[in-house]
Amino acid sequence: MERNEAFLRKAENLAPTLHTRTVWVPGSGQPLKKGDSACFDLGEHLVGYVTVKLGFTGSHPDAPAWLRLTFAERPQELSENVEDYRGWISASWVQQEQVHVDVLPCALRLPRRWAFRYVQIEVLDISGKYDLMVEQVSCQTVSSADDAALAPFETENPLLRQMDKVACRTLHDCMQLVFEDGPKRDRRLWMGDLRLQALANYRTYRCNDLVKRCLYLFAGSTLPGGRVGAGLFLEPEPEVDDTAMFDYSLFFLPTLLDYYEATGDGETLRELWPTAWRQIELSRTTFDERGIVRDSDVLGWCFLDWNLALNKQAGAQGVYLYALKAAGKIAAILQDEEKAAWIAADYEAKKQAAIDGLYDGPLGLFVSGKERQLSWASQIWMVLGGAADAAVLRRIAERPDAVGMVTPYLYHHYVQALLDVGERDKALQVLTDYWGGMIKEGADTFWELYDPADPNASPYGGTIVNSYCHAWSCAPAYFLREYFPDR
Amino acid sequence: MERNEAFLRKAENLAPTLHTRTVWVPGSGQPLKKGDSACFDLGEHLVGYVTVKLGFTGSHPDAPAWLRLTFAERPQELSENVEDYRGWISASWVQQEQVHVDVLPCALRLPRRWAFRYVQIEVLDISGKYDLMVEQVSCQTVSSADDAALAPFETENPLLRQMDKVACRTLHDCMQLVFEDGPKRDRRLWMGDLRLQALANYRTYRCNDLVKRCLYLFAGSTLPGGRVGAGLFLEPEPEVDDTAMFDYSLFFLPTLLDYYEATGDGETLRELWPTAWRQIELSRTTFDERGIVRDSDVLGWCFLDWNLALNKQAGAQGVYLYALKAAGKIAAILQDEEKAAWIAADYEAKKQAAIDGLYDGPLGLFVSGKERQLSWASQIWMVLGGAADAAVLRRIAERPDAVGMVTPYLYHHYVQALLDVGERDKALQVLTDYWGGMIKEGADTFWELYDPADPNASPYGGTIVNSYCHAWSCAPAYFLREYFPDR
Repeated sequence: MERNEAFLRKAENLAPTLHTRTVWVPGSGQPLKKGDSACFDLGEHLVGYVTVKLGFTGSHPDAPAWLRLTFAERPQELSENVEDYRGWISASWVQQEQVHVDVLPCALRLPRRWAFRYVQIEVLDISGKYDLMVEQVSCQTVSSADDAALAPFETENPLLRQMDKVACRTLHDCMQLVFEDGPKRDRRLWMGDLRLQALANYRTYRCNDLVKRCLYLFAGSTLPGGRVGAGLFLEPEPEVDDTAMFDYSLFFLPTLLDYYEATGDGETLRELWPTAWRQIELSRTTFDERGIVRDSDVLGWCFLDWNLALNKQAGAQGVYLYALKAAGKIAAILQDEEKAAWIAADYEAKKQAAIDGLYDGPLGLFVSGKERQLSWASQIWMVLGGAADAAVLRRIAERPDAVGMVTPYLYHHYVQALLDVGERDKALQVLTDYWGGMIKEGADTFWELYDPADPNASPYGGTIVNSYCHAWSCAPAYFLREYFPDR
Repeated sequence: MERNEAFLRKAENLAPTLHTRTVWVPGSGQPLKKGDSACFDLGEHLVGYVTVKLGFTGSHPDAPAWLRLTFAERPQELSENVEDYRGWISASWVQQEQVHVDVLPCALRLPRRWAFRYVQIEVLDISGKYDLMVEQVSCQTVSSADDAALAPFETENPLLRQMDKVACRTLHDCMQLVFEDGPKRDRRLWMGDLRLQALANYRTYRCNDLVKRCLYLFAGSTLPGGRVGAGLFLEPEPEVDDTAMFDYSLFFLPTLLDYYEATGDGETLRELWPTAWRQIELSRTTFDERGIVRDSDVLGWCFLDWNLALNKQAGAQGVYLYALKAAGKIAAILQDEEKAAWIAADYEAKKQAAIDGLYDGPLGLFVSGKERQLSWASQIWMVLGGAADAAVLRRIAERPDAVGMVTPYLYHHYVQALLDVGERDKALQVLTDYWGGMIKEGADTFWELYDPADPNASPYGGTIVNSYCHAWSCAPAYFLREYFPDR
């Protein structure tokens, strides 16, 4: 790992203040014996620290109360037991704690931060001489988003208003000491999420220094050779994740450009341009002699979507073109003419290579990998990279055999691609169908994963490890405000 | 409940300083994955607060480590699972905690106090990207006993030396803000335990103000009518347990007398005499017209021993006589002649009633209850009450059908009864056989319960809720120093 101490100091100095608010609900008044449980609905999705006021009825407690507290973003999670979970994501993410309460009455403050709306309190064991009383459940919320700073969004369409509200809350609850991907899981900075969060942030909470901080964190702790990592840990001190993904490294470029366009902060653009440019340099070895991204069977070499069946080759080519466009704009702003010229030439070459090598003329679609896989991701990224037009989006919709979209993350890029080719109505329809679908499922915040055909699906083996407040899903706050302020 | 604020203030002012010491062992150097566990032997029985230094190998931790820490006084406890425990004592006593560790490396300090020698750390789940390393386990011990104040005990007999050492450690580890019965369970003041602890304390740590504090606590928070409770809770503020037991209330008298004899503190004797006397007054209603304790089928109306089969009538009569003897001595010291005369008369009357109503002439033994039950407890307490001599102890030993002794608590009284009737050799033999038996089982501290025929027995349904450092078992520190200083 490589560290740039000056960049990390800048990031540290940009650490945000966390705003807090206290939300509470009264107890149920129900005495709880061994085996009993009570569930509390805090009424909204919260991120913060929980205090439970506990009392008792009966004799003076003569043994500890042994409790399990489970925190859930959706009620569905409460129907699953961590003991039965056999999925491949660590069960350590399940929001559950066992505690022994030695003294009653007490205000039990749990030390960890939770992301939840529902709290279930189970009495695993207790003395027969007394019953437990839950008198209050309260949460001291934390977020670096300032509610008072939220830019207004006016619309008479109740669904759009609700979608914007839920998207803002999603963003809000993910805005902590960095832009986290999800406050339940993984609770850390990822480049792919940061880019989408930043876009929504500029139009909502405008906590622009938080974006700047995250850019300096990524530039301050890099993988060998100066490669920007896919993610970054904050504690015990900032350190890049040893996971690298082709697309996530390159997204440093558009994220930096977006930041400059939102803020006009030329100093940061100039200071971080070498880090950004380094990502272009490092990606060169990925291309074959034809100028096409070499396919790889290394799991997770490029992200695009949470879909193990997806071949990433064509999508990665599109991502490169997309990043190169951002690089060209930055070079132009910084009047870096030498690089600008190289970028322009390389862009044309790689775009032509994509058309020559990945476009299937008879099909009118881009294909990916040895098996010439058809997927939505490939078309979307070729559009975003500027190598394709509306036609591929129309054609792929007629191919039920194509590999589909799994996450709101890829749906976000689909909406952007539709807007880029002028399909405004379709873009709004996708927004309202897909994100509106989560609203209909009762979402307080938008989810990491959403399959309209199976809202309770989990690719991890249990909804208890799904994240139901996930930053990459805050698209409506960006798109509605940026493209549909009149709806 | 009745409170005497002046008494409780006195008790509060006598709160002891807790002495601390740090004990630690290094980690195993073994990387732990999901499902792995490591066990650490701290080398001695400890009571205190545990800090575990944790690190990792592999990638930066990308998910919490979900751990279960189990604290055991004996290795046997580690072979049982709390999930399988079905006993009638609350499983909330099992010394186990589940924790989620979010940041590594860290010094994980558990908030609760533990009584243990062994610590087992299990990795319930963790990310596949890193392994957990336990780098150190340390304990900050707490006790109000000052090691430097321990009176010496010299003997060339290694078993007696070890018995005294283990008894002193037992007492030491139970000496906290009050004399606790056991630092694992129930972690509180009980009158029956206090009396025996105080006797050992006067000859060992001589922390006499702690006895005084406990007497004022019992006198400061009483049951309706001024009855001294069987036990007392300290938190959130001192409050008598609503459990009352015939013998435990009466033990306030000998405990007060013993305290005076050890300290010469006449002021306390005088101030607490009304509380003590009140116990005699309150017990009067328990006697029938013949002057014999009415039997009761209320569970736990009188303790004597942890034996549900034991009929308590005769033992209770013995306890009353025993308490009345102490009352007589106190009345004499305080020159309370009126009470002294009443006591002398009542003692003779109740003793005669015991002989007339409970002694079976042909058997030469005391019987108890409608079923005329034969038990060790009945004979022992009639000896201690002064109503019987050595003969009953010899005869009961020839009756294998008699209800036996279950706890070191009753064995303590057996030893005392033997000494009272001059059977010194037999008393020492019982001490070395019974307490020495625990030593042979590897005891670091003496146990709440010990059945020589089945050392791993638990009347509660699992050793995980047994207490293996229990104050009422510290007899050797008292008897060896008081009666056998020359052995």
